[in-house]
Amino acid sequence: MDEVFLKMIKKKFGITFQNTAYLEEAFTHSSYVNEHRDQQLKDNERIEFLGDAVLELIISRYLFEHFPKLPEGKLTKLRATIVCEASLSQFAKECSFDDYIRLGKGEERMDGRKRPALLCDLFESFIGALYLDQGIDSVLHFLEQTIFPKIQSGAFSHVMDHKTNLQEYLQQKGEISIDYHLVEEIGPAHQKVFVVEVSAEGQALGQGQGKTKKAAEQVAAENALLILQDK
Amino acid sequence: MDEVFLKMIKKKFGITFQNTAYLEEAFTHSSYVNEHRDQQLKDNERIEFLGDAVLELIISRYLFEHFPKLPEGKLTKLRATIVCEASLSQFAKECSFDDYIRLGKGEERMDGRKRPALLCDLFESFIGALYLDQGIDSVLHFLEQTIFPKIQSGAFSHVMDHKTNLQEYLQQKGEISIDYHLVEEIGPAHQKVFVVEVSAEGQALGQGQGKTKKAAEQVAAENALLILQDK
Repeated sequence: MDEVFLKMIKKKFGITFQNTAYLEEAFTHSSYVNEHRDQQLKDNERIEFLGDAVLELIISRYLFEHFPKLPEGKLTKLRATIVCEASLSQFAKECSFDDYIRLGKGEERMDGRKRPALLCDLFESFIGALYLDQGIDSVLHFLEQTIFPKIQSGAFSHVMDHKTNLQEYLQQKGEISIDYHLVEEIGPAHQKVFVVEVSAEGQALGQGQGKTKKAAEQVAAENALLILQDK
Repeated sequence: MDEVFLKMIKKKFGITFQNTAYLEEAFTHSSYVNEHRDQQLKDNERIEFLGDAVLELIISRYLFEHFPKLPEGKLTKLRATIVCEASLSQFAKECSFDDYIRLGKGEERMDGRKRPALLCDLFESFIGALYLDQGIDSVLHFLEQTIFPKIQSGAFSHVMDHKTNLQEYLQQKGEISIDYHLVEEIGPAHQKVFVVEVSAEGQALGQGQGKTKKAAEQVAAENALLILQDK
């Protein structure tokens, strides 16, 4: 396996593989295997099958524990927004995995290296390799550095629609006016974080941060609900 | 939780729960919660969400390890035949779980206790409760007693179609006549086991056992393939 890649995952995630054969398998696309039949290589499809199940379980457990009041239907919806092609391909790129996968020439020419489905599979293959090499706790540790912070920052909260949930909660006892207002904007223009406060009938209920005003509003509503439901 | 049930799972599977609240939750259907709103009970839907992911991972790992030559597409197909409503509801009945779930009166009247979807959810809820109480290794141990023997005996092998695989393997070098014949029938009429031998061009390649001739043929083909591919 590429030395630069091994150094990168050690530096970035503190991961050192015992058996790099798992990594070789995870970073080998079937198109590459087809073009090098003499080498008897394994493609990453079987290891991706395993990685997918590992990822599902760790994300499920995280959501189960961190959203104790969320009903099953919403947990399933939230999980599907995290464990999906769009999200996982994005994570693969953020981890620079796309630079290291071995592709066949045809796949390379057709920009396979940028294809979301391929990158999503690659992220799951990496998880599978890490699981086989070091067990489930190492995968948990890797996800604590990559996916969990995004869940915490509300990157997926839009599917849960906390604003609607808060409105339904507050209006159980009749009409109430709910207001979201921008408290401040933090950081430089290209990395701005918005802070929003939600209030009802003039009384502040909670604040939230996010990369967009919409995301910050969702987090604010979520926090308000957590506080209200704990009372 | 019902004492008879606790004794049954201890005797049958060697399982003793630390925290029976997880079991209570796993064996409470939403219809029961709806009829007992004053008791603030939890239904089994959230814990089933978790159990489903635990089951997927353990079965995936088992198949990954025990079928090292099976491509991803066939692993997925095989997993789907095991982790599905028909199979899981059957397992729930074999474990007598259906006797212990708390149902609402309406659900009971509509024969909910026999409904495959409800029993499938119940099996997954039990897995979720066991996982929360004792971790993944206990679930593995439970599945070693319930599901793995069925996979080993070829109960799901029909989806893999080993007979076609064997034929394709043998006929790479041209037409070959393949023959399956019944060697013997073991056991009483209501519990008969068939033993089948597969041969090609008169040479025996492997034997298999099953509850039907078809199942036994699949196992025989699978065994023949394992032997041939190891050569």
